[in-house]
Amino acid sequence: VPPDSRPCPGLPRRMFVPGLLAAALALAPATPIRAATANPAPAVPADVAVPPADAARIAGAALASDRAWRRLSELCDGIGHRLSGSAALDRAVAWARAAMVEDGLDSVWLQPVKVPRWVRGQESATLVEPMPLELPMLGLGRSVGTPKGGITAPVVAVSSFDEMAALPPERVRGRIVLWNVPFTTYGQTVRYRSRGANEASRRGAVASLVRAIGPTGLRTPHTGNMAAYNDSFPRIPGAALSAEDTDMIQRLLDRGTGVKVRLSMQADTLPDGVSHNVIGELRGRERPDEIVVVGGHLDSWDVGQGAHDDGGGCVIAMESLRLLKELGLRPRRTLRVVLWTNEENGARGAKAYADSIGTRQRHVAAIESDGGVERVVGFGFRLLKAGTDSTDAGATARLVERARPLSRLLAGIDAAAIDGDGGGTDIEPLMKLGVPGIAHQTTMERYFQRHHTAADVMSHVDPLELRRNVAAFAIMSWALAEMPGTLVP
Amino acid sequence: VPPDSRPCPGLPRRMFVPGLLAAALALAPATPIRAATANPAPAVPADVAVPPADAARIAGAALASDRAWRRLSELCDGIGHRLSGSAALDRAVAWARAAMVEDGLDSVWLQPVKVPRWVRGQESATLVEPMPLELPMLGLGRSVGTPKGGITAPVVAVSSFDEMAALPPERVRGRIVLWNVPFTTYGQTVRYRSRGANEASRRGAVASLVRAIGPTGLRTPHTGNMAAYNDSFPRIPGAALSAEDTDMIQRLLDRGTGVKVRLSMQADTLPDGVSHNVIGELRGRERPDEIVVVGGHLDSWDVGQGAHDDGGGCVIAMESLRLLKELGLRPRRTLRVVLWTNEENGARGAKAYADSIGTRQRHVAAIESDGGVERVVGFGFRLLKAGTDSTDAGATARLVERARPLSRLLAGIDAAAIDGDGGGTDIEPLMKLGVPGIAHQTTMERYFQRHHTAADVMSHVDPLELRRNVAAFAIMSWALAEMPGTLVP
Repeated sequence: VPPDSRPCPGLPRRMFVPGLLAAALALAPATPIRAATANPAPAVPADVAVPPADAARIAGAALASDRAWRRLSELCDGIGHRLSGSAALDRAVAWARAAMVEDGLDSVWLQPVKVPRWVRGQESATLVEPMPLELPMLGLGRSVGTPKGGITAPVVAVSSFDEMAALPPERVRGRIVLWNVPFTTYGQTVRYRSRGANEASRRGAVASLVRAIGPTGLRTPHTGNMAAYNDSFPRIPGAALSAEDTDMIQRLLDRGTGVKVRLSMQADTLPDGVSHNVIGELRGRERPDEIVVVGGHLDSWDVGQGAHDDGGGCVIAMESLRLLKELGLRPRRTLRVVLWTNEENGARGAKAYADSIGTRQRHVAAIESDGGVERVVGFGFRLLKAGTDSTDAGATARLVERARPLSRLLAGIDAAAIDGDGGGTDIEPLMKLGVPGIAHQTTMERYFQRHHTAADVMSHVDPLELRRNVAAFAIMSWALAEMPGTLVP
Repeated sequence: VPPDSRPCPGLPRRMFVPGLLAAALALAPATPIRAATANPAPAVPADVAVPPADAARIAGAALASDRAWRRLSELCDGIGHRLSGSAALDRAVAWARAAMVEDGLDSVWLQPVKVPRWVRGQESATLVEPMPLELPMLGLGRSVGTPKGGITAPVVAVSSFDEMAALPPERVRGRIVLWNVPFTTYGQTVRYRSRGANEASRRGAVASLVRAIGPTGLRTPHTGNMAAYNDSFPRIPGAALSAEDTDMIQRLLDRGTGVKVRLSMQADTLPDGVSHNVIGELRGRERPDEIVVVGGHLDSWDVGQGAHDDGGGCVIAMESLRLLKELGLRPRRTLRVVLWTNEENGARGAKAYADSIGTRQRHVAAIESDGGVERVVGFGFRLLKAGTDSTDAGATARLVERARPLSRLLAGIDAAAIDGDGGGTDIEPLMKLGVPGIAHQTTMERYFQRHHTAADVMSHVDPLELRRNVAAFAIMSWALAEMPGTLVP
C-alpha cells in the first residue's frame, strides 16, 4: 500500500484489502465444494482449519450483546482513569478479577508487578508576554516538577532536532524550548515528546514544551511518557501544549513579538508501588499446556477515562473468553486473557509476564488489542528475529500466509484484512521469545485525536463498533486456540 | 429546502442554490448580449446595476491579500478574548480605531456604550459521587456565583422543560438539575442555556447545569449568556458541562448510581462599565447621507480568542472598506463600518447605535458578518414588520428578488446564494426601524463545535476562506452602496 493511500497521515501502515485470495475465500461457501471451478478457492490446510459454523455462532452472539458496552461503562464511568500506582488502578484490578470470576473462567489470578508512581499534581502554563493567557497543558509522564512559583522564561520555538542543533547557544540557554513539530505520524512525532526535554537541557534550556502529539483537536493537549532523563544534563520539566497555542506562539515569534511563558508543575515520582496483571483462562480441552494469550492494558493515563486506550481492548479480550464459555466452545488449547498493568509509563507488567512464563507451557500466539475501539479491519501477524526487536521478514511473510485462511472466518463481519504489521507494547517481550505477535487492527481514523487526552472517554466509543471488535477478536482468539496446528508449525 | 437536506442539523435554514435565475446570470457574459437566445438572462434593472468589472477587481484584490489574516492575528493573538468590561476589549477598541485610521477612512470615531460587566472568576465542577473527578465546565454569563466552598448536591437529569414539569417536587428540590438536551439546532437547544436556571429554581433546585450547546467536541464545554433572573425565585448559578460528561452522568443515573456534584463559581456582576462601538466610513461620492452599514461585533466570550465569533466578522468588514479605498472605488453612498460592542451579553452596542442614527441620514441597508469564517455561500436579505421582530414575508420576498441580480457579481467566487434568511443580533434594532437586514452566510459546518469555547481560535480559521469571505463581503457592501437605486425603492 503506497503511503498516500492511507486514510490519514497519522495511521500506521495497514493493508485494508484482504486481497484476492481472501476475497475469494470470503465468497466461498462454508462447506468447500470439491468440484472444479474456474478460480477455486485454495484448500485450507487441514491443520489450520476450524469449523466456520462455530465462528458464525461467535459472531452472532457478540453482535447481539451489549455486555461489552456495559462492562466498559463500569470500568470507565465507575472507576475512571487509572495510572500506575493510583487507587483507581487498584480498583480496576479488583473489578477485572471479579468480572473474570463472574464469567466462570477456569482460573483467575493476579500477578504482582512493581510499577513506577508518577503523580501529576497541580500544573499550569501561562502566557506572560505579550499578554496574560492560561494555556491548556498537560505535564508529561516522568517529568520533574518546577520550583514553587514555576519557571518563567522566554520561549524559543524549533521544528526539529536538527533546527535545535543549528541554533546559536544564546538562543536556547535559559529559555523554554517549544518543539513545534506538526503531527504527521505518531512514530515521527512522539520522539519529540520522548527526547525533547533531554535535547533541550543539553543546550541549556530550562524547560521543554511539545506541540500536542496528535492532529489538531479543540485546543487539546496530549500527555504521554518522556524518556528517562539523561544524567549528563539537568533534569528539566516537560509538558505538552495544544496545537493551536503552539501555532499562536509561533505566529507571535514570527512577527517578532517576544513570548514569555510561566510553567508551573508539582509533578513528582514517588517510590515504586505494587500493581497487578490480571489473568484468567479457559483451559484447553486437548493441549492445555499450549497457550494463546490475548489481552490489553488495564492502566491508562490520568486524564479522560482510558476508554479507547485501553479500556476497550481489555473489555474486548475479556468478553471474548466469556462468549466462548457461554457458547460452550472450549478450545483445543488454553486461551488466556492477560490485562497488563503499566503499559503507559514503564511496560513493567509486560516484562513481568514474559519473565514468568517458564518452559512448562508453550506460548503459541499472543494478540493485543490496543488500537482503540474503531472500525475493526483485521489482524497483523509478525515474528521477530530471535532475541531482538527487529522483524524477521521471511518468517513474518510465511506467518501471514499461514494465517491467511483464518481471514475467511472474519469476512462475514468485514474484518478479513491480514498483514504483517503485528505486535504491541505488551506482547513485545513475548515476541522476543519467539512467540508470534498479533495486532488487532482498526482504522484508527480518530484515535490519535483522543489518545492520551481528557477526551478519551466512553462517549467517543461507538457501541456497535465495540460489538464488531469483540466479534472479530473472539473469532481470532478462538481460531488460534482451536486450529489443529500452530501458527509456527 | 427540506430540513433533511441541510448539511448538518445544527445549521440555520440556508438556501445553498442560487436558483436557475442566478445560475443563468452567473453564466452570462459581463457585457449583456442583446441578440435573442433560447434562454436569455433577464435584464438587470438599471437601478440595481453596478459595473461587474469593478466587482472582479475587488475579488482579485481580496483573494491576493493576506492583510485580513494578519489583522485577525493582531486581534486574536495580540489581544485575545475580550468580554464586555474587560481591559482586553478596551485594547481591541483602540486597536480597531487605529486600524481604521491607518486604512485612511474619511472619518473614524468611537461611540460610548454602557455595558454590563460579568466576571467569571475561579470556577470548577467536581464529581463527588460515585468517584472524584474534575469535570471541564464553563459558567454561564450573568450567572451568580456559589457560596464559598461551592454547592454540593445530588444531580437529577432531565431532557426537556416538559420532563422537568412532570417530575415530582421531591425529585428536584435541593438538587442540581442537569439539562441533558442533545444538540439538534442552536435555536432548539439554546433555550435550555437561557432559561434553565430559572426553570430549575422554580422547582426548588439549587443549581443548573446544561449540556454543551453544540455538537460533541473533545469534552468541550460551551459558555454563553443566561436570560435575566426571574425575581420570583432564588437566583441559582448556571454552568455548562461537556456533552461527554453529561452522557456519563446520564449513564450512571440510568443504572441507579447516585451522582453528586460540587459546583464552585466566583462569578459576579460588577457595576456597568463603558465600552465603545468603533465606527469608520467612506463618504459617499453622490449621496453621502444614504448609509450602508456593515460590520460585526468586537466583543467576545472570555474563552478562546473570539476568532470565528466574531473577530473574523470585524476583520472582514474593516478589510472591505480598506480594499475599496485602496482600489479607489468611492461608492455612490456612504459605506460605514460599525464594530458593535457587547453583542454576547447584552447587545447594548447594537441598541446604542440604532438609537443614535437620527433622521438626517437614511440607513438603506445593514450587513452583519457573524457566522464564522467558513466557506462563504452568499447572503440572506430580510425585512421586518414595522416596529416588530417578525419577518414581513411579502416584503422579504420582494427584497430577495430585487437583490437577486447582485448575485451575478458573486458567482465567480461561488458565493452567489441569495435567500430571505437575513439578520443578525447587532442589526436587528436597525431592522426594527425598517432597514433591510442582510446576513453574510457561511456553511457553518464546524461553527457550533467551536462557538463559545476555548477552541474558537485562529488555528481554526482557514486563511484562504478568510480571503473569500472578504471578497464576497466587500463586493456586496460596495454593490449596495454603489447601485443607482436602493434595495427598498
